[in-house]
Amino acid sequence: MYSIGVDIGGTNIAIGLVGGDMEIADRVSVPFPHTDGAEVASIVYEQTVRLLSKAGAAPSAVESVGVVVPGSIDATGSVVINAYNLGFHDEPLKARLQDRFWDVPILLANDANGAALAELKKGALAGCTTAALLTLGTGVGGGLILNGRMFNGGMNNGVELGHMILVDGGEPCTCGNRGCIEAYASATAIVRHGQEAALRDPGSMICAGTDPAALDAKRVIDCARLGDAAALSVFDGFVARLGSAVASLLNLLDCECVALGGGVSHAGEFLFAPLRREVDKKCFFKEHGRVVPAVLGNDAGMIGAAMLLWNRS
Amino acid sequence: MYSIGVDIGGTNIAIGLVGGDMEIADRVSVPFPHTDGAEVASIVYEQTVRLLSKAGAAPSAVESVGVVVPGSIDATGSVVINAYNLGFHDEPLKARLQDRFWDVPILLANDANGAALAELKKGALAGCTTAALLTLGTGVGGGLILNGRMFNGGMNNGVELGHMILVDGGEPCTCGNRGCIEAYASATAIVRHGQEAALRDPGSMICAGTDPAALDAKRVIDCARLGDAAALSVFDGFVARLGSAVASLLNLLDCECVALGGGVSHAGEFLFAPLRREVDKKCFFKEHGRVVPAVLGNDAGMIGAAMLLWNRS
Repeated sequence: MYSIGVDIGGTNIAIGLVGGDMEIADRVSVPFPHTDGAEVASIVYEQTVRLLSKAGAAPSAVESVGVVVPGSIDATGSVVINAYNLGFHDEPLKARLQDRFWDVPILLANDANGAALAELKKGALAGCTTAALLTLGTGVGGGLILNGRMFNGGMNNGVELGHMILVDGGEPCTCGNRGCIEAYASATAIVRHGQEAALRDPGSMICAGTDPAALDAKRVIDCARLGDAAALSVFDGFVARLGSAVASLLNLLDCECVALGGGVSHAGEFLFAPLRREVDKKCFFKEHGRVVPAVLGNDAGMIGAAMLLWNRS
Repeated sequence: MYSIGVDIGGTNIAIGLVGGDMEIADRVSVPFPHTDGAEVASIVYEQTVRLLSKAGAAPSAVESVGVVVPGSIDATGSVVINAYNLGFHDEPLKARLQDRFWDVPILLANDANGAALAELKKGALAGCTTAALLTLGTGVGGGLILNGRMFNGGMNNGVELGHMILVDGGEPCTCGNRGCIEAYASATAIVRHGQEAALRDPGSMICAGTDPAALDAKRVIDCARLGDAAALSVFDGFVARLGSAVASLLNLLDCECVALGGGVSHAGEFLFAPLRREVDKKCFFKEHGRVVPAVLGNDAGMIGAAMLLWNRS
């Protein structure tokens, strides 16, 4: 039996034929059409048929089709409420897929929730009963593992780790509120603070020879690694804020593990060593959970999507 | 069958004979001896025997002895790590009780965790699968209901709702960190901010005719209710911070209900009406859980203590 794991992003749709042990047997990536959900459903269906045919498998071998998107799903698990990168708003994606896949269970989830599930199965959160994944990217997303399952919120609205308030009344957040974790611990925040630091310190390497508007978080972190004072102050500030955010999560849930994913987490020990010191300093519990990088990278969404049926069981 | 529910406070030890439906069949309250855990265990044993005898019940009718304390319990559930009001530090309370109660299951918990459990059974959180109780007192404690059970943390260290960080780098907290919810949303914080406001505005009623050192949160709230400008500014600030704290909890866990207990919660709609407006404004989810007063008051600890064995099942 196979599960179909689908990870829809603003650039590509990745579709995987995923075996019972969550091994990806075969996969395909096709451009995201930027038209509508109906075309996306057609693409997913056609590519699934193709993958099955290549594998010599019958349609009846498909146990479920799981789909993750970079956005919010309604409480019934049927409609993508908002996925800005996809241009999806109130998009009835489950119904569109169900039309093509007949009575195969179709499950939708947020991509960071899916990633948490994948990390639970075969990644940084393996073996955990209570854990969190924070994905640090354009925004801050994440997923929670509670009772050994991915937790989609008590009212099935999802979990918004990036919108816990870290600096009440602080910097504006994309959600309309102020001071959310996302406003301080996203790659976007590193870029914004990097641009501000470069303006204050024209001698800094941060924007030297490049267009400040094209700055990315990696460059700020690379400059910090090279000892640039302005970049270091941005990086240290980021680590302090992220440390407070992780300590908050640990204080509330006493997680066995908090994993960090997204591009910023690739900074490795340059990030994790000082981050762990911040967390040790700020966590209420002397013996607290581990703080580690996520390990599955780009495959996490597809694997997590394929696990959605299991998660519901 | 009965459960013995014991609520140990800095003034009294309340001991209840609690029936299967968590009705308190009989109860007694005795002064807390301020000596050591051995004497507390003796008192609990003697009073339990007395209650059983009065009820004409045999010792074998006791299913469990549950004890809640205003402090932290070690991960094995055996030792009170710190309960400042009791003067208990690394106090092996379970072993001391076990000596007297032979093979009856003895369970220890933090009192706010116990209160959450009681509210789940027959109070503000009844019927909830995912919910939180925040108790606003000298500090801010609380309990979480996850998966329909009281959750004692992923590593059994407890949940420290009052030590989620609300204003990173903000006011000092008793835990040694800065900016915790407790530093802004406790009765103690209202008093501190009330004293500061009274100093800035000597015309305020807040401390008029009284010793500022004897100020309590109720007086600040009463002055706000009467329209005193300085008290209102303290109260509005408190409501705004508490609203952010509740929104944070809802954003993370998508709780069906957040109940508020402790003395401050008795302010009724004067508190809850503006608080709900703050939460509506700050919560990520349009349809979010209810924000309500806790209902069980002083009995919550005893009932919750009696439920600890059930909670573990």
